[in-house]
Amino acid sequence: MAEASRTSEARRDAVFGRWVVFSPARSRRPTDLKSHNPTGNPSPGPGAGAPKPSCPFCAGRESECAPQIFRVPPDDALPWRIRVIENLYPALRRDIEPPPEPEVVDGEAEAEEQPGELAVRGFGFHDVVIETPRHDVRLWDLGAEGVRDVLLAYAARVRQLREHPAVKYVQVFKNHGASAGASMAHSHSQMLGTPFVPPSVTSRLNCMKEVFDRSGNCSLCEISSKDTLISETPNFSAIVPFAASYPFEIWIIPQQHLSYFHEIDEDKALDLGSLLKTMLQKLSKQLNDPPFNFMIHSAPFRLSSSCLPYTHWFLQIVPQLSVIGGFELGSGCYINPVFPEDAAKILRELDCST
Amino acid sequence: MAEASRTSEARRDAVFGRWVVFSPARSRRPTDLKSHNPTGNPSPGPGAGAPKPSCPFCAGRESECAPQIFRVPPDDALPWRIRVIENLYPALRRDIEPPPEPEVVDGEAEAEEQPGELAVRGFGFHDVVIETPRHDVRLWDLGAEGVRDVLLAYAARVRQLREHPAVKYVQVFKNHGASAGASMAHSHSQMLGTPFVPPSVTSRLNCMKEVFDRSGNCSLCEISSKDTLISETPNFSAIVPFAASYPFEIWIIPQQHLSYFHEIDEDKALDLGSLLKTMLQKLSKQLNDPPFNFMIHSAPFRLSSSCLPYTHWFLQIVPQLSVIGGFELGSGCYINPVFPEDAAKILRELDCST
Repeated sequence: MAEASRTSEARRDAVFGRWVVFSPARSRRPTDLKSHNPTGNPSPGPGAGAPKPSCPFCAGRESECAPQIFRVPPDDALPWRIRVIENLYPALRRDIEPPPEPEVVDGEAEAEEQPGELAVRGFGFHDVVIETPRHDVRLWDLGAEGVRDVLLAYAARVRQLREHPAVKYVQVFKNHGASAGASMAHSHSQMLGTPFVPPSVTSRLNCMKEVFDRSGNCSLCEISSKDTLISETPNFSAIVPFAASYPFEIWIIPQQHLSYFHEIDEDKALDLGSLLKTMLQKLSKQLNDPPFNFMIHSAPFRLSSSCLPYTHWFLQIVPQLSVIGGFELGSGCYINPVFPEDAAKILRELDCST
Repeated sequence: MAEASRTSEARRDAVFGRWVVFSPARSRRPTDLKSHNPTGNPSPGPGAGAPKPSCPFCAGRESECAPQIFRVPPDDALPWRIRVIENLYPALRRDIEPPPEPEVVDGEAEAEEQPGELAVRGFGFHDVVIETPRHDVRLWDLGAEGVRDVLLAYAARVRQLREHPAVKYVQVFKNHGASAGASMAHSHSQMLGTPFVPPSVTSRLNCMKEVFDRSGNCSLCEISSKDTLISETPNFSAIVPFAASYPFEIWIIPQQHLSYFHEIDEDKALDLGSLLKTMLQKLSKQLNDPPFNFMIHSAPFRLSSSCLPYTHWFLQIVPQLSVIGGFELGSGCYINPVFPEDAAKILRELDCST
């Protein structure tokens, strides 16, 4: 369908169950949509590789950071390429006692199910992944092997956190650009291990369960439209989702039905690293280096095996191009000026090989 | 509890069922939290009252706006104080056919319940309430009677939209400041009448139903803490909610158990107008004129009478002081650096009478 012929449409997706209003009349042409607020983050250029004096994430300033958890490579005699460290200003604290486990009555965890107001101690883990020792290198400037190693570092740390019985979920995410929440310009990601299953995870699982109960299929295995495909590799598909909440939102989905990101192996991580690098290059080139977030949506730990048929992990990339107003805050429903089919076509046809 | 003694805490509220992490270590003192991005919206001063040449919401430029729906006062011979008009760039369109009603099978609306991907025509209503003819007057510069009349205009328009059988919900909201989504500086509010019940409304009702089924009480009728109270009038309470997602978030709640905002009468609207004016003054004074949104959370139309005991309308005010990052986008869980008790104390003690 040509862009000009589109009229407003409301769509609900099969993963979060969210309604999105597509309203092309409220925007210029999709190809004109660019960030007015490019991050201006450092990129390799003249004088490349020099540490920035004020940046504690640069090589040589490790002592100014919170404690290190592990590094890549592990051998201290070699220079590090990736460091996983504690967050100096953690939102949740590993040094306090975890909340008590819910009492199990007749095999059912009672307190977990009780609705209403609830307050628990702010126990949890808040870690940082420094993706490179160099201040002027962005994640997508690394080779596919470099991005693979960052993904494998995420997975290794998630597996460590899974061992703690009070950690119910780990949210892995990256903020790029100050207005997307990055307080440091040096390329890094974060993860929070929480003592509860976060609300969006619960609603995602509930929505995917409803679809599965009715159709017998996993919502993400069912996606097959060529209209919204950007690119494929042997193991992953990059698409603009059918009911994208944000313009030029991208999902990278494993083609195989897999519930847990942290079980990824080296081959698949290389494949994902290559595709993630390409998608971030495309967004940067097409949209004027916008601030963005990406989030890995996985399954909660220790999920009952009956839930596995409808849980399927994926990675969501959200470039920041629009403002969230009272309608979105109040209703949970988003207005998107760009139809997914149009965004996918633009990103599919964009050549990032040069 | 003194501010200094607080440590991280996670809280879940009894209205939306959302988890919020309170993390005072990530902020300066709550009293230091100010907007770095004050709206700088016009306010009465020298040369007050003059229309701004480029503003179609100013008196005298009515012909540049989309069609008017009604005005206050209705008599065209008198100058208008409030105009309710169509949005020139509507997200949903009133001029296309509404989606078909779900087929009713054995008394149950089948299609409504069917999960999975769904696309419907973008039918709906998107209206604007111009709150004053003057470019340099903000909502809280009006007298309590002026704010009352704006609230009564909202209610009157919602009652009109309720008459359309395809409109399931009306989201009333105000964006103040460009970064909160306001594309016009002239003081105005908006409402969207949607052909579906928005996701946040569904999850709010589900959460309040769970509380009611367990306790026999309405989540909002149950709130009684003096610690989080800012101010009371004969009919309304202004509080910082127990698990506020945002720093200095305010809820204004009718003390009587009422499901629908649009049934408000003149006396209660005056009472609410007075309290809303005071709260907006307090936020502007305490937080350096921040961008903000407010949203009215009411019940969907034609709700079964069995749902009325647990639905209770309220008005939510969200000043924009923090950035939403990947953790919030991914998990639906918010990090708030200011404990509600501290925010309530600061707002309670702030004197706006001068």
